[in-house]
Amino acid sequence: MTHIEFRSDNAAGVAPEIVQAVADANVGSVIAYGDDPVTAQLHDVVREVFEHDTARVFPVTSGTAANALALTALCPPWGAVLCHETAHILNSEGGATSMLGGGAVMRGVGGDDFRMHPDELRAALDGIRWGDPHHSQPAVISITSPTDMGTIYSVDDIAELAAIGAEAGMATHLDGARIANALVALGCTPAEMTWKAGVDAVSLGCTKNGALSSEAIVVFDDAAGDELVYRTKRSGHVTSKMRFQSAQVIAYLTDDLWLRLAGNSNARMKRLAAGLEPLGVRFVNRPDVNMLFVDVGEAAAAAMAEAGMLFYDMGGGVIRLVTSWQTTDDDIDRALDITAAALAS
Amino acid sequence: MTHIEFRSDNAAGVAPEIVQAVADANVGSVIAYGDDPVTAQLHDVVREVFEHDTARVFPVTSGTAANALALTALCPPWGAVLCHETAHILNSEGGATSMLGGGAVMRGVGGDDFRMHPDELRAALDGIRWGDPHHSQPAVISITSPTDMGTIYSVDDIAELAAIGAEAGMATHLDGARIANALVALGCTPAEMTWKAGVDAVSLGCTKNGALSSEAIVVFDDAAGDELVYRTKRSGHVTSKMRFQSAQVIAYLTDDLWLRLAGNSNARMKRLAAGLEPLGVRFVNRPDVNMLFVDVGEAAAAAMAEAGMLFYDMGGGVIRLVTSWQTTDDDIDRALDITAAALAS
Amino acid sequence: MTHIEFRSDNAAGVAPEIVQAVADANVGSVIAYGDDPVTAQLHDVVREVFEHDTARVFPVTSGTAANALALTALCPPWGAVLCHETAHILNSEGGATSMLGGGAVMRGVGGDDFRMHPDELRAALDGIRWGDPHHSQPAVISITSPTDMGTIYSVDDIAELAAIGAEAGMATHLDGARIANALVALGCTPAEMTWKAGVDAVSLGCTKNGALSSEAIVVFDDAAGDELVYRTKRSGHVTSKMRFQSAQVIAYLTDDLWLRLAGNSNARMKRLAAGLEPLGVRFVNRPDVNMLFVDVGEAAAAAMAEAGMLFYDMGGGVIRLVTSWQTTDDDIDRALDITAAALAS
Amino acid sequence: MTHIEFRSDNAAGVAPEIVQAVADANVGSVIAYGDDPVTAQLHDVVREVFEHDTARVFPVTSGTAANALALTALCPPWGAVLCHETAHILNSEGGATSMLGGGAVMRGVGGDDFRMHPDELRAALDGIRWGDPHHSQPAVISITSPTDMGTIYSVDDIAELAAIGAEAGMATHLDGARIANALVALGCTPAEMTWKAGVDAVSLGCTKNGALSSEAIVVFDDAAGDELVYRTKRSGHVTSKMRFQSAQVIAYLTDDLWLRLAGNSNARMKRLAAGLEPLGVRFVNRPDVNMLFVDVGEAAAAAMAEAGMLFYDMGGGVIRLVTSWQTTDDDIDRALDITAAALAS
Repeated sequence: MTHIEFRSDNAAGVAPEIVQAVADANVGSVIAYGDDPVTAQLHDVVREVFEHDTARVFPVTSGTAANALALTALCPPWGAVLCHETAHILNSEGGATSMLGGGAVMRGVGGDDFRMHPDELRAALDGIRWGDPHHSQPAVISITSPTDMGTIYSVDDIAELAAIGAEAGMATHLDGARIANALVALGCTPAEMTWKAGVDAVSLGCTKNGALSSEAIVVFDDAAGDELVYRTKRSGHVTSKMRFQSAQVIAYLTDDLWLRLAGNSNARMKRLAAGLEPLGVRFVNRPDVNMLFVDVGEAAAAAMAEAGMLFYDMGGGVIRLVTSWQTTDDDIDRALDITAAALAS
Repeated sequence: MTHIEFRSDNAAGVAPEIVQAVADANVGSVIAYGDDPVTAQLHDVVREVFEHDTARVFPVTSGTAANALALTALCPPWGAVLCHETAHILNSEGGATSMLGGGAVMRGVGGDDFRMHPDELRAALDGIRWGDPHHSQPAVISITSPTDMGTIYSVDDIAELAAIGAEAGMATHLDGARIANALVALGCTPAEMTWKAGVDAVSLGCTKNGALSSEAIVVFDDAAGDELVYRTKRSGHVTSKMRFQSAQVIAYLTDDLWLRLAGNSNARMKRLAAGLEPLGVRFVNRPDVNMLFVDVGEAAAAAMAEAGMLFYDMGGGVIRLVTSWQTTDDDIDRALDITAAALAS
Repeated sequence: MTHIEFRSDNAAGVAPEIVQAVADANVGSVIAYGDDPVTAQLHDVVREVFEHDTARVFPVTSGTAANALALTALCPPWGAVLCHETAHILNSEGGATSMLGGGAVMRGVGGDDFRMHPDELRAALDGIRWGDPHHSQPAVISITSPTDMGTIYSVDDIAELAAIGAEAGMATHLDGARIANALVALGCTPAEMTWKAGVDAVSLGCTKNGALSSEAIVVFDDAAGDELVYRTKRSGHVTSKMRFQSAQVIAYLTDDLWLRLAGNSNARMKRLAAGLEPLGVRFVNRPDVNMLFVDVGEAAAAAMAEAGMLFYDMGGGVIRLVTSWQTTDDDIDRALDITAAALAS
Repeated sequence: MTHIEFRSDNAAGVAPEIVQAVADANVGSVIAYGDDPVTAQLHDVVREVFEHDTARVFPVTSGTAANALALTALCPPWGAVLCHETAHILNSEGGATSMLGGGAVMRGVGGDDFRMHPDELRAALDGIRWGDPHHSQPAVISITSPTDMGTIYSVDDIAELAAIGAEAGMATHLDGARIANALVALGCTPAEMTWKAGVDAVSLGCTKNGALSSEAIVVFDDAAGDELVYRTKRSGHVTSKMRFQSAQVIAYLTDDLWLRLAGNSNARMKRLAAGLEPLGVRFVNRPDVNMLFVDVGEAAAAAMAEAGMLFYDMGGGVIRLVTSWQTTDDDIDRALDITAAALAS
């Protein structure tokens, strides 16, 4: 039985263009730790793609590293990062930001669709005793888009939250573990979704969408960039052969590869959702990008797994289905057949 | 002009076997974050290579990460790591161990040839006020072999230092950024150089010796291993596509690839040293492995650089020459010709 | 106009018995940093008062220090402390535990009357992915009693929460900033409220209840005690003239002084509450000890302040009234007259 | 047998003026955590005594707290503090600065008489790879005066070291655990020894010299002062009844009490040294203030202890003698008699 992979875009392989870029970088010898010409070129590519003359990029090796390091460059040890109460940084990174940030804390803010709501953010900020050292001082708004539940913020949503934060003297971070999927869904430019909307630093996810071993921090704030020179090194995230990470990110951002890969994920999810809807199952989230949480009931979930579909069982009959750059129409059609059969029996 | 690379083994490329292993691992989809079959296989390979049934391995992405994480799993926040006063962990990792270890400190110990001397270690421990919280309590001996100055410890040296530490209740860490070069030079087994000599955790360097994007921590101590599950994650060193790191390390350790690659570096350095000696230049270190610091004088150093040799200028006419798995006999012979000419003029 | 103090028990002065004890300790010279006979005696006193043969006591200088240090001795850096969502440690200590604990995090748990409810605690623990390093691992239950809102847990409440935690391998901490007030209200022994109920470490508040410059950590867990030797020192909480802190805590615990002082606070609050109830104002909390949050309306609050009552205005017409060991019946009666007049106009 | 105390000035009692000041502050109720009128007055007193309009003062409870907090307010986590290799902050504070400073490190610099020598400092700074994140970046010069070995820096010494640091962009900290003894010995003003010489923050020792439970940080740098608001709180060093600390420091600085108390220590040490010199014992240090390390031989040391002198035995026949504000001429004369007899037998 051939399995159909819906567990995670993390489970997918590496895009051939990325493999090729790594092989192409394996020529001659270059100086280590990022002082190489490939990494220099990466800075140029990022500045062009993000239309920002002074943006800087730091290749790191995990999303947790990207998030935690970016946040600690924006947040003092006595600061607080405000994010949605379901955010990955709050719930799934083992306290990385608090550890690397000298005891900075994270505070969850509510809002529908797994997105921070401006009113909830305002209410949270209204309750703060600013300048009182008994209380961690809000310093960063962190927006995850797409969210871990597959929904996205519009550009205006991001801009509104960032503006509320800016008024209180706060910086804004974007956890873009799946940013390419959001860009495709929104049809906007990277600049529009980030610095033009008030974002100071972005965790630029690459690995879930076809890269091999690199994520990156893109930072528009000079002071934060200066700190990241040190923060990346002393957390072990300045690799000696950085050229091979930089080559991946260059290939990823070149000729819209990232958008094409994410475009595939999104399109396959659309096909899946369109096929599931008539089957009468309840969608837990609005599948804005490549992720769907759907309630099929425990019996059908078991039958679907039995028939070869790989997914995360969230409990109570709800399953998580994620498409990737590798998912095919055929995968979707087989999955829909399996699901229909499972629900029918 | 074709340059000849002697700056660093970090500057070399990736061995073809490693590239192939990465490509071979890019098949199908597997679960992320190390719960994949490739990483499971890596554990078996490490146990076999190190002849240790309960050894565990944690792929990380830099030598700094390997060292700092291994050390913090062995050292409480109020502990001190004792190492040679020229050790990389003390001087060249930006305080990583102190940061990740909650304020653990490092103390330099003296000794000739850039190696901790047992008498100096004993003297340092004799001066400790054990149990007095005014003083960071020595908890780990960290031995770098080869040292950053290209010398190595014998197996007996390691065993003697580890025994002194063990008597004081301390653990022993081996910074093996270039461990393969030491193994080749010593002609001993990995087990003999590590746990059989009293080592609890090893920073297993791979990247300097032909890998692409992975180093690894090998740990023989169960409690430290249990901690590393958390410590690697929250420092951002559990990558989502870990299978591609594990595949590299498997290939590296299989069929003695690591020893063959290091064997080339060492042999080329032997040829280089043999050719330099008759030229009457002063060796700063004994080139036990693939690294030589040699005093050629400032004029010759300039001429050698001019003629295409790439190396680090340490000041005062001393240069650092490092061979790698890619260095050829032809590189050495050209370098010797250039050096002879430079010294002659 | 003489003001009547209801802002905080922190605003009160020092009990004469404590002043005397400090003066009495100012005789001769003794060794510093806690190796003195007064501190040795303190250990004996604590063991007697808490009926526990191996309890240890660490005088510290603030409640934040007591809480954060006790918690970090019970919680690994990748651990989580579970407490009520209104707990002082979560909201009012500026991230101290996360900073001193290497990135340990705190998670709020719900429950009425500002107290963690067993069902909410069970639900929180049921949702944990134990052993998964993506998630901070619950390691400590922290119970604040009295709560910051003046309610208390019964001995059975504490035992039930501690038992739920113990089943999951967790330790239990009691934030006893006002523990004497709780003991008086419950009529139980210190042992019953702490280790007999499953508590491993207590933040023993003294300053709010008449001491001069000392709080203390009382710890029943040997391993945590061993860590506190180092944790107190390196956070600057081992004072050189510790005998003067120890003398305070001895006097405080001797001849039930702490209970007599707290008894005064509680009794005055009872008189106040009894007098306020007929006036028809809404009580926000049940005044179990010496603290009452009451809704008098904004106009009356202003009038009461104008008439000389000192209190915290919580907004929306709610005020906080706290009695102390210094509050007199006359203070209460004057306050009641003022309040009646303010509400009438 | 009445003992004569020479172990430590920490072992002495509290000066009567300080006891009185605490008693005087125990009137009425005032708001907690430093928002009280006594603490406000302390700021004025400090500004007057230090002749600096914007100096700020933070009462803390130990010298370790004062040093570590002041340093972390001046040093980024990737920074290094340079101090003499015998400095208290490097050897006797259990890694406090590294812990509270997020992994900041300390580096020892050499120099005779236990004092950093300008040439050694310059040499240390010349070897730095500035801006290279592999290496902790020197950020603070910390000068201990008097040193832990009883020697002092002249005002010009301090100014020279601070100037060398300032040229490299570094701040300067003064560990003044016994600053009053240095001021008396130098005959200079507090301003001359601190900010006029380039010092940005001072650990103002009080307890060794007659205070009860307070040290203080005096900071002339605004940014560091702003950070200390948060850093003191989250390390548990903002006490609730801060007025009683502030009252001590006010009394200490008023009417030259601190100088009179230190003057006694220094004068008694002068008498002691003058009496010892003719006895032909070797002085390990030059007793600039109130501390003398002297080699009397092991037999005499034993006899002196037997005869009632209390001191620290440093090993090898060397003993440490410290005078305090309580030491009397009679103590000295008895000690000289005992010593003469011990040496004679």
